[in-house]
Amino acid sequence: MASDLANLERPAQKKSVALSGVVAGSTAVSSVIPGGDHLRYRGYDVRDLATGCSFEEVAHLLIHGTLPSAEELATYQRKLRAQRNLPLAVRRALEALPAAAHPMDVLRTGISALGCVFPESPDQKAENARAIADRLIASAPSMLLYWYHFAGSGCSIEVETDDDTVAGHFLTLLHGREAHHHQVRALQASLVLYGEHEFNASTFTARSISATGSDFYSAITGAIGALRGTKHGGANQAAYEVIVRYRTADEAESDVRNRVANKQVVMGFGHPVYRVSDPRTEVLRTLANELADRSNDHKVMSIAERIEVVMADSKNMFANVDWYSAVLYDLLGIPASMFTPIFAMARIAGWSAHIIEQREDNKIIRPTASYVGPDSRTFVSLAERGMPSRWRAA
Amino acid sequence: MASDLANLERPAQKKSVALSGVVAGSTAVSSVIPGGDHLRYRGYDVRDLATGCSFEEVAHLLIHGTLPSAEELATYQRKLRAQRNLPLAVRRALEALPAAAHPMDVLRTGISALGCVFPESPDQKAENARAIADRLIASAPSMLLYWYHFAGSGCSIEVETDDDTVAGHFLTLLHGREAHHHQVRALQASLVLYGEHEFNASTFTARSISATGSDFYSAITGAIGALRGTKHGGANQAAYEVIVRYRTADEAESDVRNRVANKQVVMGFGHPVYRVSDPRTEVLRTLANELADRSNDHKVMSIAERIEVVMADSKNMFANVDWYSAVLYDLLGIPASMFTPIFAMARIAGWSAHIIEQREDNKIIRPTASYVGPDSRTFVSLAERGMPSRWRAA
Repeated sequence: MASDLANLERPAQKKSVALSGVVAGSTAVSSVIPGGDHLRYRGYDVRDLATGCSFEEVAHLLIHGTLPSAEELATYQRKLRAQRNLPLAVRRALEALPAAAHPMDVLRTGISALGCVFPESPDQKAENARAIADRLIASAPSMLLYWYHFAGSGCSIEVETDDDTVAGHFLTLLHGREAHHHQVRALQASLVLYGEHEFNASTFTARSISATGSDFYSAITGAIGALRGTKHGGANQAAYEVIVRYRTADEAESDVRNRVANKQVVMGFGHPVYRVSDPRTEVLRTLANELADRSNDHKVMSIAERIEVVMADSKNMFANVDWYSAVLYDLLGIPASMFTPIFAMARIAGWSAHIIEQREDNKIIRPTASYVGPDSRTFVSLAERGMPSRWRAA
Repeated sequence: MASDLANLERPAQKKSVALSGVVAGSTAVSSVIPGGDHLRYRGYDVRDLATGCSFEEVAHLLIHGTLPSAEELATYQRKLRAQRNLPLAVRRALEALPAAAHPMDVLRTGISALGCVFPESPDQKAENARAIADRLIASAPSMLLYWYHFAGSGCSIEVETDDDTVAGHFLTLLHGREAHHHQVRALQASLVLYGEHEFNASTFTARSISATGSDFYSAITGAIGALRGTKHGGANQAAYEVIVRYRTADEAESDVRNRVANKQVVMGFGHPVYRVSDPRTEVLRTLANELADRSNDHKVMSIAERIEVVMADSKNMFANVDWYSAVLYDLLGIPASMFTPIFAMARIAGWSAHIIEQREDNKIIRPTASYVGPDSRTFVSLAERGMPSRWRAA
């Protein structure tokens, strides 16, 4: 089944990307063709998955290796539903965190604490790792929203719901009422599209951590940290902040043209891997449009679409996965600080698959550096270092 | 000042190491010559630093760029001393963690929680990053030992001490009394030797995380996760578990020869970068010997030295930094579960220097993968997936 896809169309080394095009390992989890506008999870086109599958089916595909049958899916959903609760220690840790914290920092801390409560067994069997992955998929929304309500109002919410899906569970906990089916479907599609993306920076971080023999929670905690950056998952919140700067599409057009002329970066456009377009954008644009129609609220959508046209026209740049995710989340009434945590909730599926795969590979990831520091220096003891060093020659 | 050191004697690609010999960036923090038995921090030989410096001098060198004058050192020590306390939120989070947790998981959680309490400013100025680094150096022992005593006895200890040094602070909190000068000196030297090591797996993880634009705490949290693995920092606890298997040096020799004959791995020997010897081992052996002499307890030392001889004789393998660190920590009365956290306390200095350097470089680290999964598969909707997937062809 091995494919030669990986050897086609590698991107040229980009100045802004270290190790660009360098093969750091092998994977069967997903394939990206940078020039060919293509992303597949275990061989399936991500657009088919986003329009035809629930997030649970895709999590099963990524973590357990196959698209589930109806029977398997029902079992899997029951399993996830049963693991939404949080142990008391994790609640206590979340309650300790300040209301001003960023939810990504909260999720990082909550999952790290969960790793103290239910540590992975040192034998690191793949079946146990998959069970931890499922627990994290099930309980990440609980962590985020338990903290969100506790920090906001001092309320300890009940984190178990009857929703069939992770997306439904998240929306019910956020809004305190069951979401409409079409809202769940939209959030679900974005979770599918955010679920996996080959050796992106957070996944590579998760693999680097698990490659030392470390535990599952350490790898996920590190990956959340990497995803938080604005050059990675943090970009969806940053993209939203671009859109909400404007009151109208005309105002957006004029300001964005100015910014482009002044060589300022506009978040939500371009990609470190894709060169022509992002295969995930169209599905999200369509879903965001549907939500805008249903709510009869086109303001944010019209601004986002205009900026997309301007960026294509003036910079030949395409909207990436973050652009319409931001619009979609706004239309679902999700606060901007939760945008990147939703990305994390979804990507746990991909990270988990990569952690398990990296362990089978059994290699530590240890590159080297080009040394650009001082040559050999003679050591000077403290007694001889008379003057403060700022007055000494380097 | 740039040097061509980095281009000498790169190790050949090793099967057990991914990206071995691949340059993933440049650094002025340290240089390693794999064949030449050499490790320098900002140009200074690590052996001179370990025998001639306090850990605080080396932390200043790594984080602030220079070996401090006596006046600067006094100021720096005062600064670190003033930051040993833990905010209430971090105490509460640590109190929530179970007594059975691994201290590495506790440290990961505590630092992640501290990042919620004192988040880094989004401007990520280097001077603020250095201030966070100093706070982490100062407070990591407090976190570890606050949790250790609270989990063990329910006691909320006072974490501020009058010790001048991080090593002294750690030992005072651990044992509840001030340590002898020679004990502080021994622990201090091991902190110096653990302080930095170029693009090792945890440092590379910290750099990968900070390269996305993420915050300082995320990078440190991820690095702690990577260090935890037994192929990395976790090896010092694993090395200790080798040594304490035996009652006598003769018993050790006979069993280790058997293990070598059966091709079993003996932890604490060899290194992914060094090929001839580890430049840090000799200083640690000497210090461990001195501690054994002073306490008139040579049992563990004699077993460790015999195994070193056997490994050299039977496998031509050298003891690495972890081997005599384990002996030294044992002689200081430190519980084995704290060995890797001590490594982390020290390496925070190196990680911090690399995080700041990576930010200056301003590149995201994003390698690629060789795809070995299934070729394009036709999507099958749930309704058409009749049978459980275990009965379908792959």
